[in-house]
Amino acid sequence: MAGQIPDIVVLRLPLYVRALEHLAREKVELVSSQELGGHVQLTAAQIRKDLSYFGKFGKQGKGYGVAHLLLGLRRILGLDREWPMVLIGVGRLGRAILGYEGFAAQGFKIVAAFDTDPKKTGKKAGSLVVRPFDEIESYTRERRISIGIIAVPAKEAQYVVDRLVKAGVRAILNYAPIAARVPKKVKQREIDPVAELESMTYYLK
Amino acid sequence: MAGQIPDIVVLRLPLYVRALEHLAREKVELVSSQELGGHVQLTAAQIRKDLSYFGKFGKQGKGYGVAHLLLGLRRILGLDREWPMVLIGVGRLGRAILGYEGFAAQGFKIVAAFDTDPKKTGKKAGSLVVRPFDEIESYTRERRISIGIIAVPAKEAQYVVDRLVKAGVRAILNYAPIAARVPKKVKQREIDPVAELESMTYYLK
Repeated sequence: MAGQIPDIVVLRLPLYVRALEHLAREKVELVSSQELGGHVQLTAAQIRKDLSYFGKFGKQGKGYGVAHLLLGLRRILGLDREWPMVLIGVGRLGRAILGYEGFAAQGFKIVAAFDTDPKKTGKKAGSLVVRPFDEIESYTRERRISIGIIAVPAKEAQYVVDRLVKAGVRAILNYAPIAARVPKKVKQREIDPVAELESMTYYLK
Repeated sequence: MAGQIPDIVVLRLPLYVRALEHLAREKVELVSSQELGGHVQLTAAQIRKDLSYFGKFGKQGKGYGVAHLLLGLRRILGLDREWPMVLIGVGRLGRAILGYEGFAAQGFKIVAAFDTDPKKTGKKAGSLVVRPFDEIESYTRERRISIGIIAVPAKEAQYVVDRLVKAGVRAILNYAPIAARVPKKVKQREIDPVAELESMTYYLK
């Protein structure tokens, strides 16, 4: 099915998942596209169009079954399994990422942490022992890990991304304050809270 | 000038700022739209079009002066001043946010932290003493603070956002795993690393 669904729709699906999880916790059993739209700041028409890519989820006039839709979307996104990840960079930010509880709750697990600094390798960070970055290819390939998280300074980001791509990683969550060049087959998402702030101050001046 | 520039362009400007800062650190003095495009994964034409909204930055055939363009963009985005911010929610995530060094480097400063939990208020978090959430309106209004950071559980997010909006906050950086409803005049950006991961696993299955 991949390739047929526009990237922009795929980007929205996690927001639906998040809203549906919230509704499920609140014991809501049925939700209209209007209500779901309210939770994700989209129109009912947009919701119906997005979900239509994936077949029939709702019943005319009855809305979507929250549990059914949630299960379906999680399966479509590949969230019905656990995803091991490697973390590169165990500075202050990397340690905060290791301590972030939101990943495990959704099946994402950092299974190894790497750093180029020999003062850090061999020591504990959270529950992991930091590995030397030179082991990245062998470790990642052997375990067929597809996801890498980068928390290194801007000037190291491209080098680290290149090595990760060589190691077979196909999805990169980049906390470095710069976007790296990646081949077409590799996905990259940037987490940059400062950039998000900067895109709002324009309106505050 | 606000209102004339498409939101999508404003969203990209911080990426240019980031790339230009990187170039400035590398002592690069001139950059072509092509080179700059390479750093932010956009075409040269897109760069030229985006920057044309803000007047003449480059010289035909010579490229952009890095320092000049950086200064100009920072001014346009309102980054030539310091922005005080309030943080709501001092759990594990909130504490990591308090410890994040990237904000201060760009002129963003968390000046107060609030929590609804009386067990947390009055105690230290980083260099701040946690304040009771009920003081949010008076504190924020008196100091005319425009930016709030939210690090509360999903079920509290809407309530906290409503109170912040009442308190005069016009920009919200939302780390809660759900988007809140905000009035048109208020901007909201969500930081959700798990949603970013989930938007990539679709392609990994």
